[in-house]
Amino acid sequence: MSLLVVGSIALDSVRTPFGQTADALGGSAVFFSVAGAVLHRVQVVGVIGSDYPKAELERLAKMGCGIDLAGVSQVAGESFRWKGKYSYDLQNRETLDTRLGVFADFHPKIPDAFRAARYVFLGNIDPELQLGVLDQVRAPKLVACDTMNYWIHSKRDVLLELLRHIDILMVNDAEARELSGDWNIYRAARWVLAHGPKKVVIKQGEHGALLAENASVFKVPGYPLEEVFDPTGAGDAFAGGFLAHLARTDDVSEANLRRAMVYGAVMGSFAVEAFGVQRFERVTVQDVEGRARAFHALVWFDLTTAAP
Amino acid sequence: MSLLVVGSIALDSVRTPFGQTADALGGSAVFFSVAGAVLHRVQVVGVIGSDYPKAELERLAKMGCGIDLAGVSQVAGESFRWKGKYSYDLQNRETLDTRLGVFADFHPKIPDAFRAARYVFLGNIDPELQLGVLDQVRAPKLVACDTMNYWIHSKRDVLLELLRHIDILMVNDAEARELSGDWNIYRAARWVLAHGPKKVVIKQGEHGALLAENASVFKVPGYPLEEVFDPTGAGDAFAGGFLAHLARTDDVSEANLRRAMVYGAVMGSFAVEAFGVQRFERVTVQDVEGRARAFHALVWFDLTTAAP
Repeated sequence: MSLLVVGSIALDSVRTPFGQTADALGGSAVFFSVAGAVLHRVQVVGVIGSDYPKAELERLAKMGCGIDLAGVSQVAGESFRWKGKYSYDLQNRETLDTRLGVFADFHPKIPDAFRAARYVFLGNIDPELQLGVLDQVRAPKLVACDTMNYWIHSKRDVLLELLRHIDILMVNDAEARELSGDWNIYRAARWVLAHGPKKVVIKQGEHGALLAENASVFKVPGYPLEEVFDPTGAGDAFAGGFLAHLARTDDVSEANLRRAMVYGAVMGSFAVEAFGVQRFERVTVQDVEGRARAFHALVWFDLTTAAP
Repeated sequence: MSLLVVGSIALDSVRTPFGQTADALGGSAVFFSVAGAVLHRVQVVGVIGSDYPKAELERLAKMGCGIDLAGVSQVAGESFRWKGKYSYDLQNRETLDTRLGVFADFHPKIPDAFRAARYVFLGNIDPELQLGVLDQVRAPKLVACDTMNYWIHSKRDVLLELLRHIDILMVNDAEARELSGDWNIYRAARWVLAHGPKKVVIKQGEHGALLAENASVFKVPGYPLEEVFDPTGAGDAFAGGFLAHLARTDDVSEANLRRAMVYGAVMGSFAVEAFGVQRFERVTVQDVEGRARAFHALVWFDLTTAAP
């Protein structure tokens, strides 16, 4: 089934204790699609400036199941640039510079060929633009959506309107807390479920992620990694794995959503093992399935013979 | 199989955003044994002052499978008192006052009847005293041990000696990091495994706990609780559930250690639902088994039908 992502396409300059990158390919739509494309073809809508290394993007687009760049428009001006620095333990990051460039005037126009998309991910952009995307897609089976603290504060009403039109809100724990005004993550999840989405996914960094529905909670842990190089994009890679698995199976049952959480966590764990999108240049479907099985071994237990 | 705990017996005064207690029963040996006794009888060695509400302790000792207080000596002087305050989100705590009292001269003397203990938990006390306990027990099948930052810094050499004589180190993430000097929790676990213990359990508060052996890692998540009242003693309650399950089954296979982790997490989740040890006054074996099954439902997934 067709899978569409709308989000940022950026040039990231990232410094961690283990090295740095300058103007490396990044942005929510890029991390989503390089991770997702390992499992399923991804259609991308975004904007790049005249200075963007388009050949590099086109090279990435040929990997795995492929990325369809027909919705990426190149316009005159500078590309979106983000510059950030992580603390020694990678637990905190500081934004050193954000230059919106052509992203400031981004108005997603969904190509005709993409309007039939059945699975849609709205990356973290202005919620007005996210709503605008929903007006252009015909009959999506499932829409998931990310946001960030900036929109939670500056466009709260629009964001609340958006929540009434999506199936899954997919945010990190800090965003869930800010949106709901509740520091307890399970109450925050319940708050989200009371505002529209039937499901909410809350990403918790190295501690994994949770999927909450009214009747149940599912948790996938973080993968045990002794070396983490760059957390940038892990959340979008998670979203890419999650939605690509749903799109490739076209099954939104609870059992399959749980599997999608695992594939999301698998992609998030690959994302942090190298700078930017580099790790995905050598991830195969076999690698993904192997790590998914490792996740199973990581949490597996059997209570049936537990009684004394 | 017999289960012995040696640790502190304290009077805690705790303030959280939801209320406070004054001189409530606490300490590592108390939290361990009230949690453990739900599943298996616990033998306790500790010291209390002349001001300790011993009748209250004796009342708790009658619950569940029972707590054998034959190793608790009452001596002239003040009982160990700890006073602390938690932040609004319960993520941080500040020690307001610590008065060792009779605990300052505590030299654990294991009663003859307890020296045959097969499962032993050395609660967080001076590592010299923990080593002294090991000299007194005859042939334990499994010894687990806790410690804290204070001993890691002030008695590092003794602690390293102790590590060579125990089976499982059971600490929280901050302690594992301080002990190993490594902020990556999996490298910290590997450091511990290279210093004696065959297994290490690292407790991660609301994010659950992990069990690491040379060949594998197991993770149990934190239980989704919308209301948490008092985190005090959760780690010791975890240890109580973990060791009581091992003692009641007398099985140290990897599959059963994983079950023990779940029973530990179950007890930790009960501990935080009320102040001090209060929650355990109304926890039944059925409650414990029900929550263990809820943990299974929380992490269960099946990859077998995942391929498209």
